[in-house]
Amino acid sequence: MFQIADRTFSSRLLLGSGKFASPLLMQQAVRASGCQLVTLAIKRLELTKPQDDLVTPLRNMHIQLLPNTSGAKNAKEAIFAAELAREALQTNWLKLEIHPDPRYLMPDPIETLAAAEQLVKLGFVVLPYCSADPVLCKRLEQVGCVAVMPLGAAIGSNQGLQTRSMLQIIIEQAQMPVIIDAGLGAPSHAAAAMELGAAAVLVNTAIASSNDPVAMAGAFANAVNAGRMAYLAGLATPQQQATASSPFTDFLATL
Amino acid sequence: MFQIADRTFSSRLLLGSGKFASPLLMQQAVRASGCQLVTLAIKRLELTKPQDDLVTPLRNMHIQLLPNTSGAKNAKEAIFAAELAREALQTNWLKLEIHPDPRYLMPDPIETLAAAEQLVKLGFVVLPYCSADPVLCKRLEQVGCVAVMPLGAAIGSNQGLQTRSMLQIIIEQAQMPVIIDAGLGAPSHAAAAMELGAAAVLVNTAIASSNDPVAMAGAFANAVNAGRMAYLAGLATPQQQATASSPFTDFLATL
Amino acid sequence: MFQIADRTFSSRLLLGSGKFASPLLMQQAVRASGCQLVTLAIKRLELTKPQDDLVTPLRNMHIQLLPNTSGAKNAKEAIFAAELAREALQTNWLKLEIHPDPRYLMPDPIETLAAAEQLVKLGFVVLPYCSADPVLCKRLEQVGCVAVMPLGAAIGSNQGLQTRSMLQIIIEQAQMPVIIDAGLGAPSHAAAAMELGAAAVLVNTAIASSNDPVAMAGAFANAVNAGRMAYLAGLATPQQQATASSPFTDFLATL
Amino acid sequence: MFQIADRTFSSRLLLGSGKFASPLLMQQAVRASGCQLVTLAIKRLELTKPQDDLVTPLRNMHIQLLPNTSGAKNAKEAIFAAELAREALQTNWLKLEIHPDPRYLMPDPIETLAAAEQLVKLGFVVLPYCSADPVLCKRLEQVGCVAVMPLGAAIGSNQGLQTRSMLQIIIEQAQMPVIIDAGLGAPSHAAAAMELGAAAVLVNTAIASSNDPVAMAGAFANAVNAGRMAYLAGLATPQQQATASSPFTDFLATL
Repeated sequence: MFQIADRTFSSRLLLGSGKFASPLLMQQAVRASGCQLVTLAIKRLELTKPQDDLVTPLRNMHIQLLPNTSGAKNAKEAIFAAELAREALQTNWLKLEIHPDPRYLMPDPIETLAAAEQLVKLGFVVLPYCSADPVLCKRLEQVGCVAVMPLGAAIGSNQGLQTRSMLQIIIEQAQMPVIIDAGLGAPSHAAAAMELGAAAVLVNTAIASSNDPVAMAGAFANAVNAGRMAYLAGLATPQQQATASSPFTDFLATL
Repeated sequence: MFQIADRTFSSRLLLGSGKFASPLLMQQAVRASGCQLVTLAIKRLELTKPQDDLVTPLRNMHIQLLPNTSGAKNAKEAIFAAELAREALQTNWLKLEIHPDPRYLMPDPIETLAAAEQLVKLGFVVLPYCSADPVLCKRLEQVGCVAVMPLGAAIGSNQGLQTRSMLQIIIEQAQMPVIIDAGLGAPSHAAAAMELGAAAVLVNTAIASSNDPVAMAGAFANAVNAGRMAYLAGLATPQQQATASSPFTDFLATL
Repeated sequence: MFQIADRTFSSRLLLGSGKFASPLLMQQAVRASGCQLVTLAIKRLELTKPQDDLVTPLRNMHIQLLPNTSGAKNAKEAIFAAELAREALQTNWLKLEIHPDPRYLMPDPIETLAAAEQLVKLGFVVLPYCSADPVLCKRLEQVGCVAVMPLGAAIGSNQGLQTRSMLQIIIEQAQMPVIIDAGLGAPSHAAAAMELGAAAVLVNTAIASSNDPVAMAGAFANAVNAGRMAYLAGLATPQQQATASSPFTDFLATL
Repeated sequence: MFQIADRTFSSRLLLGSGKFASPLLMQQAVRASGCQLVTLAIKRLELTKPQDDLVTPLRNMHIQLLPNTSGAKNAKEAIFAAELAREALQTNWLKLEIHPDPRYLMPDPIETLAAAEQLVKLGFVVLPYCSADPVLCKRLEQVGCVAVMPLGAAIGSNQGLQTRSMLQIIIEQAQMPVIIDAGLGAPSHAAAAMELGAAAVLVNTAIASSNDPVAMAGAFANAVNAGRMAYLAGLATPQQQATASSPFTDFLATL
């Protein structure tokens, strides 16, 4: 069980709702994953097209919706999107994403911190997507964010924990949940993130773009559990040398 | 389900029985892992000390025993140990291990191939532990081994898939199960091995030396499932570039 | 040759002056490295202790001094230190370092950008030390910094290019020199940084803490040259498959 | 300076002669690299086509020729090729290569050891190309090879030190020169091999296939020197934590 703001979750896997071939496939993947928190882009909320409605089925599954501001290029756009989302979805939870760069979708640390500070004051429960920058994460905590979501690699890149050495420091220093977001392309990446001590991971592309999103969602769910269990049980440190066992000839001598 | 020789297994996690604090703890870990195949060193078979008996409880759990020749320094010692094991345990299954080097316990390719060839002729079902050498693995297949067990890293080192680039070639070329053995120190390592296409993995130190071997056994079981499911569903290739989504400003323009 | 502001340098290796056993050893290492730009902490400028004077010998060697604000915890402290340095050393060149975190010495993106903007207006030639954050580096360029100095790993950690995937993006997007700073613990790390397309690297701990700083300085100089030459000549892309050559039997057939 | 058999070399970079656009370019690259030992495939020795003669110019440069048996699929073919080479080139030096696998050109450990043993008895100075297998390398030493040439990655793959963890053990255990061969795609890879303690490296594809083989040869030469110097000077161990310097505020307090 882990807690964000006033809610408790049993699943440590968060899903994104983008890039699925259909809303139905998205729902099936969400169900297979056991996920309780789904992020969705405000710009994709096309409430006028009921056949594309992502929201109703998620609500029926008692999923906590986490609208995100993907596509916002600065704090002003993000705050505007947040207000829209709060009104449309009746939730003050928000994944804050600000990326002026259209090629790698890298988050802007300055605008993100400024927007986070304002959104907290406006009553939002803010989970910012950010670079794997230890000082930035500390500052986001200080302005009242309820969690941080540093990236493992570029969004959609499937490269895994490219920022591992920074994530270790972020997790060591954080006094709130650290959710690794972006770049996790395989269940082993998600397990490794949890083994580092992440509170949770968010996965989208690797599941939604899979040939079998439902199976892949289940795979990630298992991997997240595996990594968490191993973290709690305590992982051994890699050793340079093998642990020598007694030679077989000793045994022969005992015959 | 996967097959070795004439037996079918639903679990793709194999366990070693060494280094556990007690036989009871070993049994509990085996049960938690769902494992159906356990390797045990012939030299540890001290049948005269019933309180240390590893074998009876495993038999009661319907585990396929896989005696190993750990400690043998050449083919002759390994074959002698194999004969002892077959008689004592009433099984012709054998994990062949020959490591003349007491420090890193690295397998000897020459003696291993020679012993494998003879043991197959002697009616053994041979699964050799070997270095991650693609040509050696092909030759072990050609002399009649039912699987190969190339190492991921030095035994007990917990370093993970250090030999990944060679394992990829071995798996691509094999027409029998490839079981990654040695060096897997975390569930994420086991998941990564399965994602590569390994048929199974064998884990011992990382579970037996954990503070909580039972929990760690469950963690590895989940990770192996996760990696296998992902392999079957098809993993995406890592991308250099992010997958750009349409900018938020496009959305604003539609209001 | 590469240019920073109005100066041209033939050496792409920058040195730090900290942690050397003596000022003399520092000078010898600087000479062995061929370095033309040395950074020194303003707080170490103890002009009242002439025997510890780092500055005079560097000036005599025609080294461009690059005072740094190491130890500053916010923009205000950094600007104060910069003013002190300009007066004491008669140079407006400045390596901007702001790290509130005493354990990992990670740079603060917010304070660094704010200080950079002000220092540029105050007439400084600003080279900021920063996290490997592509958007931050772009912003530092936009406020008038003459180069950026993203970290490869934590200062003094010797871990090498832990932030490689982000550095690639930074280099691709930059229109000013990118100088990789911090964490380079071996010449191979420096060569790899140059092969990525970095304009230069800065090394301190790995040289100053070596058993033989003068030899290590020469080693890094060679590695930087090697990496730069390779970058210009064009590196091949890693291939999954070997390049097959014609089999020897074809040759035998021609006999 | 390092020694193989009865010859002493000042350069620790060995070159392969294959894949160059022309013999002249090969010579220029050899000259730029400072290399004193060049390997060439016996099957490429087309002595009847004088315009393609690789040998005469190398002899004029006082290069030690190292004919190789590339393309041989078993010990018999390799020994035949070795005899041909000894007669044609008037040298008993031999790089032994046996790779039955045409796709990845992986060496065969069994045939290689058998051929090495015979070739040593036949008076050859044998340097075998082999997988990064610590026990195999020890055995090759025991049968009288003067050096071992374990692979870093698949031939021509440019992937670098994929077998690093095994190479470390090989180097630690060897009492003869360890020359890292195959897979080194960038000067940083060569430097890293030397930093591990390799006696030398052999490079071919990365230089011959470069847009500018002469410049690339020089780059590798610099990198090999850098890695060797650093190895001798003693490299620092990577640290998890930064080395904290005294905070700037301490300095402020002294004003």
